[in-house]
Amino acid sequence: MSNHPRDPFPAGGNPDAHATGMPVVTVIGDGQLARMMQTAAIEMGQSVRLLAGSAGASAAQVAADVIIGDYTDLDALRGAAEGASVVTFDHEHVPARHLRALMDAGVNVQPGPDALAHAQDKLIMRERLRQLGAPVPPFTAVDSVDDATTFFDDVDSRVCLKARRGGYDGKGVWFPGTREELIRLVTELLGRGVPLMAEEKVRLDRELSAMVARTPSGRCAAWPVVESVQTAGVCTEAVAPAPDLPPALGERAGELAVKIAGDLGVTGVLAVELFLVHADSGGEARILVNELAMRPHNTGHWTQDGSRTSQFEQHIRAVLDLPLGSPEPVGGTTVMANVLGADTDPDQSLHDRMIEVWNRFPDAKIHLYGKDWRPGRKIGHVNLTSDPGLGGGVPELRRRARLAAHYLVHATWADGWISD
Amino acid sequence: MSNHPRDPFPAGGNPDAHATGMPVVTVIGDGQLARMMQTAAIEMGQSVRLLAGSAGASAAQVAADVIIGDYTDLDALRGAAEGASVVTFDHEHVPARHLRALMDAGVNVQPGPDALAHAQDKLIMRERLRQLGAPVPPFTAVDSVDDATTFFDDVDSRVCLKARRGGYDGKGVWFPGTREELIRLVTELLGRGVPLMAEEKVRLDRELSAMVARTPSGRCAAWPVVESVQTAGVCTEAVAPAPDLPPALGERAGELAVKIAGDLGVTGVLAVELFLVHADSGGEARILVNELAMRPHNTGHWTQDGSRTSQFEQHIRAVLDLPLGSPEPVGGTTVMANVLGADTDPDQSLHDRMIEVWNRFPDAKIHLYGKDWRPGRKIGHVNLTSDPGLGGGVPELRRRARLAAHYLVHATWADGWISD
Repeated sequence: MSNHPRDPFPAGGNPDAHATGMPVVTVIGDGQLARMMQTAAIEMGQSVRLLAGSAGASAAQVAADVIIGDYTDLDALRGAAEGASVVTFDHEHVPARHLRALMDAGVNVQPGPDALAHAQDKLIMRERLRQLGAPVPPFTAVDSVDDATTFFDDVDSRVCLKARRGGYDGKGVWFPGTREELIRLVTELLGRGVPLMAEEKVRLDRELSAMVARTPSGRCAAWPVVESVQTAGVCTEAVAPAPDLPPALGERAGELAVKIAGDLGVTGVLAVELFLVHADSGGEARILVNELAMRPHNTGHWTQDGSRTSQFEQHIRAVLDLPLGSPEPVGGTTVMANVLGADTDPDQSLHDRMIEVWNRFPDAKIHLYGKDWRPGRKIGHVNLTSDPGLGGGVPELRRRARLAAHYLVHATWADGWISD
Repeated sequence: MSNHPRDPFPAGGNPDAHATGMPVVTVIGDGQLARMMQTAAIEMGQSVRLLAGSAGASAAQVAADVIIGDYTDLDALRGAAEGASVVTFDHEHVPARHLRALMDAGVNVQPGPDALAHAQDKLIMRERLRQLGAPVPPFTAVDSVDDATTFFDDVDSRVCLKARRGGYDGKGVWFPGTREELIRLVTELLGRGVPLMAEEKVRLDRELSAMVARTPSGRCAAWPVVESVQTAGVCTEAVAPAPDLPPALGERAGELAVKIAGDLGVTGVLAVELFLVHADSGGEARILVNELAMRPHNTGHWTQDGSRTSQFEQHIRAVLDLPLGSPEPVGGTTVMANVLGADTDPDQSLHDRMIEVWNRFPDAKIHLYGKDWRPGRKIGHVNLTSDPGLGGGVPELRRRARLAAHYLVHATWADGWISD
């Protein structure tokens, strides 16, 4: 027995991964969020099982107990949930009826399907938020072309059309420039059976994200509100705490996120994506809720290096109903820049690109997801935390984070820098 | 194909763990150091393979690519090294001849056997350090009872007897009180074939640890010098940076560690355990080298939550010859308290003990190794970083870290605290 790979467990995963007898957390999903939940869980001595679509997926690559299966298949979900103390998610796409079936069988699902409905269906979310008195842009259900054109007139042609379900990262969102384009889009999408809604296209100053964690017992912890930068609907950058945010507005955004988490019964991490809307002449800036995500979120990646408690550690603690950690920042400001696949993949290896980035910015915390290159794909992120010795403040920190992320995808320095 | 565990890879580990094509780091060893190297590696998108003694061992529980085998078996080592960019260690016990055989076959071993010899054999280490002009306590080889008694007289009976190889955590170290006890010990140990040395039992103020990382290219980064508290030869606490250390002394200790790393050709993380020796009347305090460890070290665990770059991330970066990260602290002071198995294991579950600790100290960063309870066994550690709002300074931080670690093993509050 000198050299052999670890034996597989034939019918229910890898029992060695749970040798400690700690509660088993089953994570449904195999993306980078599951991957980072897992490293956080390991450090706390917690024990994770993954339901993954494939063995080579981001989280499955690095997990010790992986069940391969489809999250739309109830049997696969049942198998992954067997013996788990809690089932949680790295995405919102598991069918609610399956989650209810698991709960009927005694499985502890966090967040539960009633909460998740508000992250799965944009219309349900907006109706509920309006009911709760949370600020949302004017919106309407679009079940016919008439619904759409009436709304088009109501909002002076400033229409944003959205698929109610399944959209993310700018997918499932359209900005028709004309009434004709709207009619064409709605006709085509309804014809394909895509449930739709429309909302007013907001004149926004910038986007914010208010993130909280909440336990089944109702304990909450809110991170500082973050500014998020979206490019073509995809988050490219987050700055924490949001620079130059009036304290009262930051506080209101944090309280709103806590209220939404409580009213909707969210458990685990909740991200409330917000629009910061132009002040009218004489008025003050307002926040409007854009989207909800009930899991760790791209705008919370800064917490890994910039907060006492990362969103991944906090999510695991929250779904296990453990006391929450402190959401305080550890440095002044942390900037997160996404590493998004370029249009072409450079010849220089990713390994050599890391060397180049670290030679210039040794402090860049590079997080990579083990994903193959694909144009626009999220393959990693870079965190940079301000240093008392750094001149130039937040703008310089943002510049550096962007340069680092740009180099990681393009293998070129956007500012023409040449190493010694 | 609705639900099945991931397939094993029959003859060389799990290729899915290396789907990214990133350099593969093979870690020989399955303890907590390998476990924590692995989480750091995953976050950087690096790819780790483990040679573990058993599938249930601390690191093997959580690794995606585990080869089960014995690190004293050359075939097992060869198998684990296959295709790896670098082979590194979580302990110093791999036979040097095996490492040389791997190197002869073209394997990149970091640190190499010539450096490791100084962490494997205390006599070789002291001879080399004396040669380099590094401060060490008076010492001698002990090949006979005569060697021992001569040294006993030379140092006024203040003898510390040590096994040259294999000792750690207070094992392999004896403090004979009398000449007779020394004779009896030496006779017995030499009779059993244990190679010995002796050194002067130092009158020490306190113990320090100077840690650095060094790359094969010769780049170095030194963390602030740490105070370490040993109880019965086992590290129980570390305070970073060492409180009230004269800056010149801290600087000297850091420079000494960098010099030793360079002169000995160490790669990866090096811990230089130091004695801070009483100032003679009128003189100033001095440092003496106690031990060397060529891997992440217990006195460096604070870096996970208290430094820009953790020792585990830095070790992976160093052995891959990547640029090193900043060793700067992120907070004021970080205290690490070890969680060592109590004499009996309390009835309360470890999970419930974590809840109790976090209810009182939500900021305690609890790291657990997935190890079963055994008296005195290192099963985890707690890091606490000072908070600007915390009264009481470093003594209060130490008190809290100790209380948290004590609760995790005893399920009682050492100060009698009762929760609401």
